[in-house]
Amino acid sequence: MTYEELFSTIQQKKSYLCVGLDTDIRKIPSHLRQEADPVFEFNRQVIDATADYCVAYKPNIAFYEAMGARGWESLQKTLEYMPNTHFSIADAKRGDIGNTSGLYARTFFDPASSGLNFDSVTVAPYMGQDSVTPFLDIAGKWVILLALTSNAGSADFQRLTTPEGALYEQVLRTSQSWAGPDRMMYVVGATQASALQHIRTLVPDHFLLVPGVGAQGGSLEEVSRYGMNSHCGLLVNASRSILYAGSGTDFAGKAREEARHMQQEMATYLDKYLN
Amino acid sequence: MTYEELFSTIQQKKSYLCVGLDTDIRKIPSHLRQEADPVFEFNRQVIDATADYCVAYKPNIAFYEAMGARGWESLQKTLEYMPNTHFSIADAKRGDIGNTSGLYARTFFDPASSGLNFDSVTVAPYMGQDSVTPFLDIAGKWVILLALTSNAGSADFQRLTTPEGALYEQVLRTSQSWAGPDRMMYVVGATQASALQHIRTLVPDHFLLVPGVGAQGGSLEEVSRYGMNSHCGLLVNASRSILYAGSGTDFAGKAREEARHMQQEMATYLDKYLN
Repeated sequence: MTYEELFSTIQQKKSYLCVGLDTDIRKIPSHLRQEADPVFEFNRQVIDATADYCVAYKPNIAFYEAMGARGWESLQKTLEYMPNTHFSIADAKRGDIGNTSGLYARTFFDPASSGLNFDSVTVAPYMGQDSVTPFLDIAGKWVILLALTSNAGSADFQRLTTPEGALYEQVLRTSQSWAGPDRMMYVVGATQASALQHIRTLVPDHFLLVPGVGAQGGSLEEVSRYGMNSHCGLLVNASRSILYAGSGTDFAGKAREEARHMQQEMATYLDKYLN
Repeated sequence: MTYEELFSTIQQKKSYLCVGLDTDIRKIPSHLRQEADPVFEFNRQVIDATADYCVAYKPNIAFYEAMGARGWESLQKTLEYMPNTHFSIADAKRGDIGNTSGLYARTFFDPASSGLNFDSVTVAPYMGQDSVTPFLDIAGKWVILLALTSNAGSADFQRLTTPEGALYEQVLRTSQSWAGPDRMMYVVGATQASALQHIRTLVPDHFLLVPGVGAQGGSLEEVSRYGMNSHCGLLVNASRSILYAGSGTDFAGKAREEARHMQQEMATYLDKYLN
């Protein structure tokens, strides 16, 4: 999916919602546990319920890996089930020396190798350029680089002072020579909304993937006000607040309600802040 | 495996060799390709050939993930086949917000969940403390934190100046309050041997996992001279130089020869530099 196609989808659906498929086998409704593949069945119903209101899906790979080979099968089926009108994100936070990152690129982007064909993958920047660019060698795929994350630990290193500002600012600056806004996005946590206005001066055109709204306490209004650009430039993720909006047989209906609620709020912010 | 047990194994075997199982399906000898699980069969023969000369095995997870669910099965069989006298390292370079790192901990450390039961996992520090400590919540398991890696991209961020030295120094300093040398090791690339002497002043007692000897050009002699402490404190990894020492039906014999050669060199350095 291209930058323009993504923006066009956002305009059509008046939504920049990404649904995070952090599907925890321990948390899914009990009536699904007798299914042959409970995780896939849960995801299938969540996708059916939310597809009208979101533009992207983001499975968090840890939740699938934690179940071993069986989890990878659930992940593959989930990805195949996602409508190809939606942008798909492997939230994997990978990053290794060049030849290894090349293999991670095959993992998420080469269905002939792994069975998976995501549009994008999240990558950690610590190991630098040659750990990131192998993901960009595959045409049409995106890297979503960690910049300023939503957790408490983001203060440990990401905010350390370097000669040209905080480490996360240096990550934003340096990595722009690796790929433009048509192939790279950045992770900026919603719990860091106050930094978004400043971040927009460093990366005016890039999409930002923003986790941390909902269960982690970030404000959708603030994120939208400080983060939106002329092409929206935001994908706001919600995981737990949608997946576990209900806990019984009505979980999909509750997920749909919550996604619709967020989409409606987003429609007002698109009217207000798209510039 | 405890710190003292690891040191004791090193003394008995006069070796601090870690064999990196970066098993690439495209590179294994053609006569193995008709096996039901060629990757496992290759690993099994490499383990049989090298177990006498090494103290640790380190599968690089990317090589298995790139093959999807099938790759996870090869990984699980490989781990089960490793002698439990050897320290096992999941080279995964994970790291995510706390609840997600908790799931990655289950992935590598909880056989009831994923089928895998490694002794340790490599973790990227970018997201800070709460992305690292969930791995330490599981008794007896180790974190091996990236500090200064062996690739060219290590210059992009790891060497950036912060108020208290380079970023990698800050990682070494800060992370010592998260766990001691009995639960944490650090990755320091062999291509950075000149930095090892300095790194030893910051982390005198920790084990260092050192990749980059062999195919990447690092010197085993320099690493040993500058990196060894009173408990050896080194696990030196070799992957390609052992796995692909031969390319025909004699690959296991060639791997054994190369591992033995490295072990013999290590025996002389243990005599010379253990202090």
